[in-house]
Formats: sequence, C-alpha cells, structure tokens
Amino acid sequence: MADMNRVWRLRKRPVGVIGDDVLSFDQEPVPEPADGQFLMRMNYLSLDPTNRIWMSDMDQYMPPVGIGEAMRGVVCGTVVESKHPDFAQGDIVSGLGSWAEYQIGTPGMLNKMGPLGGVAVADAFGLFAVVGPTAYFGLMDLGTPKAGETVVVSAAAGAVGSIVGQIAKIQGCRAVGLAGSDAKCKWIVDELGFDAAINYKTEDVAAALKKACPNGIDIYFDNVGGDILDACFKQMNLFGRIPTCGLISQYNATAEVPGPKNYPMILMQRLKVQGFIVLDYAARYPEAITALGGWMQQGKLKFRVDMHEGLEHAVSTLRKLYTGENQGKLMVKVS
Amino acid sequence: MADMNRVWRLRKRPVGVIGDDVLSFDQEPVPEPADGQFLMRMNYLSLDPTNRIWMSDMDQYMPPVGIGEAMRGVVCGTVVESKHPDFAQGDIVSGLGSWAEYQIGTPGMLNKMGPLGGVAVADAFGLFAVVGPTAYFGLMDLGTPKAGETVVVSAAAGAVGSIVGQIAKIQGCRAVGLAGSDAKCKWIVDELGFDAAINYKTEDVAAALKKACPNGIDIYFDNVGGDILDACFKQMNLFGRIPTCGLISQYNATAEVPGPKNYPMILMQRLKVQGFIVLDYAARYPEAITALGGWMQQGKLKFRVDMHEGLEHAVSTLRKLYTGENQGKLMVKVS
Repeated sequence: MADMNRVWRLRKRPVGVIGDDVLSFDQEPVPEPADGQFLMRMNYLSLDPTNRIWMSDMDQYMPPVGIGEAMRGVVCGTVVESKHPDFAQGDIVSGLGSWAEYQIGTPGMLNKMGPLGGVAVADAFGLFAVVGPTAYFGLMDLGTPKAGETVVVSAAAGAVGSIVGQIAKIQGCRAVGLAGSDAKCKWIVDELGFDAAINYKTEDVAAALKKACPNGIDIYFDNVGGDILDACFKQMNLFGRIPTCGLISQYNATAEVPGPKNYPMILMQRLKVQGFIVLDYAARYPEAITALGGWMQQGKLKFRVDMHEGLEHAVSTLRKLYTGENQGKLMVKVS
Repeated sequence: MADMNRVWRLRKRPVGVIGDDVLSFDQEPVPEPADGQFLMRMNYLSLDPTNRIWMSDMDQYMPPVGIGEAMRGVVCGTVVESKHPDFAQGDIVSGLGSWAEYQIGTPGMLNKMGPLGGVAVADAFGLFAVVGPTAYFGLMDLGTPKAGETVVVSAAAGAVGSIVGQIAKIQGCRAVGLAGSDAKCKWIVDELGFDAAINYKTEDVAAALKKACPNGIDIYFDNVGGDILDACFKQMNLFGRIPTCGLISQYNATAEVPGPKNYPMILMQRLKVQGFIVLDYAARYPEAITALGGWMQQGKLKFRVDMHEGLEHAVSTLRKLYTGENQGKLMVKVS
C-alpha cells in the first residue's frame, strides 16, 4: 500500500465545458478507517453524465459536491484494510464513493459485489452498478413496453442507451436509436440489433423519425432533452411514455436553456413524462441484475466498456461524454 | 317545435382572441332524425377552455372542427322526437354535441342523465358532464393525493379548479389555489375552504407559492401551463405529480409559445407529468359521479354555475373564459 493518496477535489463550479481548473489532482495522506469502516483502493471509476450535474450548483437530485470536497463518483475497488466485521481484505466492493485512489468505505455506500457468474469485474461493475439497472427500470417500470410498440432512445450508442434498445428488442418492440456518428449508428444496428438508427448530427431528425417510426413512437427514452425531445414529442402516440433519464444536451449550457416548445403534446396525446434516478430503485437491484445477467448469458445483451487507463486522466476522459467521443460505458482503470 | 334551427358554424380558424368572424350564427331547417336517432332541443351549452382548441388546427386530441361544420360542444337538452327505442320524448340527455338549438342525437354521444337526486338539471349537468369527473380523475388517479400533502391548482376559481381544491381538502391535503382577482381568491378561501390563495396577476407567484407551501408542492394540478407551471416546477417535492388538464394560457397564442424552462426539474425531482382528457375515463364516470354526488349531499362540495342566457351570445360568453371574467362553471341557457 502506498503512503500517499491521490484525490480529485472540486475547486470551482464549471461553466460550459469542464475546464482544467475545475478540479485539482492532489497528493494527500491515505485516510485511516475508524471502527465500522474499511479502506478501499479503487480499481475502476465509472464516468457518467451526471458527474457534471454534481459539480454544478444547478437544481439537482442530491446536494452538489462542495467546493474543496473530493469529487463524487461511482467506484469499484478492493478492500485493503477493514475494521468492519462484514468486510475482509480482498473483498471487491462497488457503490457511491470518491474520485480517489484510496477512500474510506461504509456499508450502504459501498457494498460487496455479488457472484459475477464468470463475468469480468469491469464488465459486471460497468453493467450492473448503474447502467444496466438504469436502462432496465427506466424502460420496464416507467416505459412499460408492449410487444409491437416502437421505442426510441437517444444517446443510443451510450452506455444506457445501448442497453435500452436491446431490452426493447427482447420485449418484442421496434427499437430506433439516435446517435452522433455513422459508426455509432452502424454499431447499434449491425452489432446490437436495433431496427433503425438516426445520425442526429447529419440527418433531419423529424423526417428521419417519421421514416424510422412508421407507426409513431410509443416510448421515448430520453437521455438528452433539447431538440431531440421536441422532435419526439411531435410524433408520440396516444398514451405514450417518456421515461426521463438524462438531459445531457443542456448540462454544459452557460445560458438559460429554453424548455421544449412541444410540451402541449403531453396534454393532447395524454403522455406520461416521468423522471427517475436509478438510486431510487436500490432495493430492487437484484431483479435488474438477474434479468440483465440472464440475457447476457443467453447472448441477447451485448455490452461494451470504453476503458481508459489512469486516474490522472479522469477529467479529460469525462469530457468525452459530452462531445460524444465515447462508445459504450466510459470508465477509468486505476493504474 | 320551431320550423327553423339556429346553428353556430365554424367559418375560419381563430388567430388570438376568438373574433366575431370565426363562427356564424345561421338559420337552418331543423334536421330530421333517421331510424336509430333522436332529435334533441338544447337546454344548456357548456362552455369549456377546450372549445378554443377544437376551433384551431393545433395538434390536438380529437380532429378539430372542420370549416363549415357546426361547432362541437358539451350539451344538455330534451328529446323532442325519437326514432330510437331507448329514448322517448321528454328524456333529458347530455354529452358531446353541437352548438345548435336542435340536433340529431345517437346513443354514445348523447346519453340519458342518471337520477339527479334532487339536484337541479343545470347543476347536475355542469358538475357531472365534464367538470367534476375531470377534477376527480385528474386529482385522484394521476395526482394520488395523500393526507398531509400540498396540492396547488391553477385557475382555482374556475369550474375544474374549484372542485380540485375541495377534493384535495376532503383528502386531508393542504389546498392552495391561483386565481386572477382578489374576489376570486377570497371566494375560494372563504367559501370553498382552500387554505391559501394567490392572485397571480398582482403577486410575485414564486414568492407567494413559497409562503403558501412551506413544505413544498406535492401535486400541481395544471390548468394553465406557462409561467405558473414554471414557477411550480421549481417548488415541486421529490416524486411530485403534475396532472396536466389544460394549458389555457397558450390557447390564444399567435406566436410560438416557449416551453417551460424548468423542465429539468422532472428529472431532478423525479416528477410525473401526465396529460389526460376526461373522455378517456368515460367507462368510469359512475365512480366519479357517486363520489361527487355524495360529497355534495354531505355539504363538503360547493359548485357554482355561471349561467348566461341566449345561445346567440355563446361566442362572447366563451371569450370570458380566456380573460378570466367567469367565476364557476360557464354555461349558456338556451332561451
């Protein structure tokens, strides 16, 4: 074990793209676990769109990270010292922690990972910690897909979106994805089995949606908000559902973002728009993990980790999420 | 029976406030019922915010009224001639019909009113045909109020809003209403039992909401959209519900109306925003009527009809809805 720790601390609120001065990467003493705690060394750091929200002081679903505090993140690591009876050295844990090589863990925030069934730790962490349950509960619980319906998902080559489309197919739905490059569009159709893909950067989204969804949209799984949301609003079927998982198009905004002008479609088409955060479903994680793990073993669900080495590159790696440079679950491996 | 009929026909799509040239009031022969139909003479015409939607060609939940067609409306009348075995001369019927003194009725669109239990026809029609079930299903089904929660309703001195607030009180909730005059505010608090009222024309709505809702808003029953919706979004509690019943603030708009800029609160607070039209609940009307009738008999529910005489004044009477001149259920009595 090293003597010194490496910790990313929030130094200021980001304005627009996350600048190099928003966080500092500091050398600090390794913390000491008290009774009932354990010390974890991080193996993998999950990078998620919501990280940008936590850095900001916008209205949000948890308190933002305070200035000077270690950056919050979804982490996976190994217990290196334990003063808690249920945790032993060598246990693999994951959950909500910090962007720090070493950190104090307490049960509830960091929990032992269940049996992995032959899946690599990084894949199991990537799929089961956030992304898979997010896609699963958002689509199944709020979207309530029925066979034959049309499901549209934005950021479809992203970690959550790629799973949403595949679950939609498993449910017997037509799956249509929006992504930001021809390569991503090709990937979700050819490799993941989406029925159609739309490159929202080069195509007329409204016209492309009309073509890709000849029977209208029953479920729009929203990861992005903005113009794509507005275009989908216009083509929603009666009693359609819009699980609202993210609004990444506006997280980096520096000016007030206009609301969706087609909001009245909620009334006209009797839509249900519902926001959710996967943490709300903590008690039901086993249900999602059982379903996702089963589909993976049956070869029905593919999952790609976009792994980058080096905790010191966490910020520059995170920025790829907002420019769409990643493909699959973005993660950092701690060297 | 008169030889000639009087019919309001749509002549053009309204732009902004409904102009005098949007509909024409025509003398026409009284129609003849065919087998399986009956002829009804109208007693009361319900005037509802949605009338303006039906006149327009905006995206909407039913086909708009065609140019040249009789204006669509919710009507109550007496059967004067019947060629349907289930309907007899003198039966009182109500439902979806036309702005016409005489009109052809068919079961399904126009149905016999149930036992009125001593309630006057105009009150029963006003409360049970549209307004009461709208308030009941919107609040109870989509809002799912729990005792101790805070319910905010806009257009609170209007027909639906005034019922929503009273049902909220019956459910043990705190009821806060927004209305457009001090007289209306006084009425909903002093007469209807709301806990607080906000005059949105003279008060700072955000500050007034903060004061009137010290524990935040659990349910915002939206009749208006626009700035009031945006202000409520900001103060919604976790897992709050926004039954979306109307967006009257924008029905008369002549330019594109911006969407609600605080839409991201749906994600942050995990809100459920759901649109509905009372016609979706047609099969469950008896449930609403039983509940509403019971509360009325117990003196827990007050209802005010704002009756105007003369079918020839239907258009000028309807305009009162959009300027907020009415107080209670706006209706026309056919002379």
